[in-house]
Amino acid sequence: MTKGPIEFYFEFGSPYGYFAAQEIDALGAEFDREVLWKPFMLGPAFKTTGSRPFMEVPLKGPYCVKDWERMSAYTGTPWQMPEKFPAAILAAPRGFYWLKDQGKTLSAHKFAKAAYKAYFADARPMWEVEETADVAAECGIDREEFIKAVTSSEAKQRLIEEGQAAIDSGVFGSPFIRVDGEDFWGWDRLPMVRDWLKTGKWG
Amino acid sequence: MTKGPIEFYFEFGSPYGYFAAQEIDALGAEFDREVLWKPFMLGPAFKTTGSRPFMEVPLKGPYCVKDWERMSAYTGTPWQMPEKFPAAILAAPRGFYWLKDQGKTLSAHKFAKAAYKAYFADARPMWEVEETADVAAECGIDREEFIKAVTSSEAKQRLIEEGQAAIDSGVFGSPFIRVDGEDFWGWDRLPMVRDWLKTGKWG
Repeated sequence: MTKGPIEFYFEFGSPYGYFAAQEIDALGAEFDREVLWKPFMLGPAFKTTGSRPFMEVPLKGPYCVKDWERMSAYTGTPWQMPEKFPAAILAAPRGFYWLKDQGKTLSAHKFAKAAYKAYFADARPMWEVEETADVAAECGIDREEFIKAVTSSEAKQRLIEEGQAAIDSGVFGSPFIRVDGEDFWGWDRLPMVRDWLKTGKWG
Repeated sequence: MTKGPIEFYFEFGSPYGYFAAQEIDALGAEFDREVLWKPFMLGPAFKTTGSRPFMEVPLKGPYCVKDWERMSAYTGTPWQMPEKFPAAILAAPRGFYWLKDQGKTLSAHKFAKAAYKAYFADARPMWEVEETADVAAECGIDREEFIKAVTSSEAKQRLIEEGQAAIDSGVFGSPFIRVDGEDFWGWDRLPMVRDWLKTGKWG
């Protein structure tokens, strides 16, 4: 029997998505599952659920800031609070789909990981197209082609449609993992994802 | 060195609080920590954070309903969707503090577990004082005294103050676990709580 893929929905501006991104490929490899990376914008999803970014929420904001610090130590993942957070990280997901649509999946994944690291570990201004193009170039992607692509109306439209499809299918947060029709919201559900991959049943 | 207690903040109408309540005492016993049960009302906390009950949130509501079903199988905890949810579960937390303030901590904990089970496993109408008094009586508590206590203005005031103190200290959800100054929000953080209790450090 062919095992279905793990769909990994995430937003490039989401710390919990960043932490999950460090673990998801190894999890897929361990259980022989393809991992489909699916970046989307949380903004429209938050509009649907009436949610606000963590930082704007009293009590939850300070909790999360402290939580990311300790998660870094807990998981061994480099972490540095970005200078601007939250920020609209648009060029990265557009660039991701532009690469993927050309069949350059490996390059798209390499770029996605570099973009996450640039924002959350190296405090680089990933809300800027130029900086994001630098990260792309460091991944061996043509800088000028990248800029042309991510500023095109096609790339904008492509990302909007991916996001709407995600919301329509029930995705409302980042990270959001779907496998065998089971949905898992949040980094802290990775142990439950692992249990599902191992047993294929609950209890 | 004396090890500090585990503060277990929960709301009696919270499914994730119910699931955490099944595990928290064993966790405390395993690491020789006292567990302080601290019921509070989520309503005022939600007002502070601008949150709404899960059921009213598009996408998240249906996700949670399915999640509770599978968590029941995953954790081996009985579960039945209450007839009315969310509901204002007031007599249970008021009764809890009334018992605790008399030094009847064991009785308070026994009653808390019975009240949670009545609402989330047996679909009993725990938003009613009379039904909650029945549950208290089943725990060996005087029924008439219980009713008199939980409908008193003192008991109402006591619960309001406990809730405000919780919010003032940073509590914003249920379950919410505090130990050694570390805060953990959500049932899915229990593995991280365990790791902290085991190592006393991150990473």
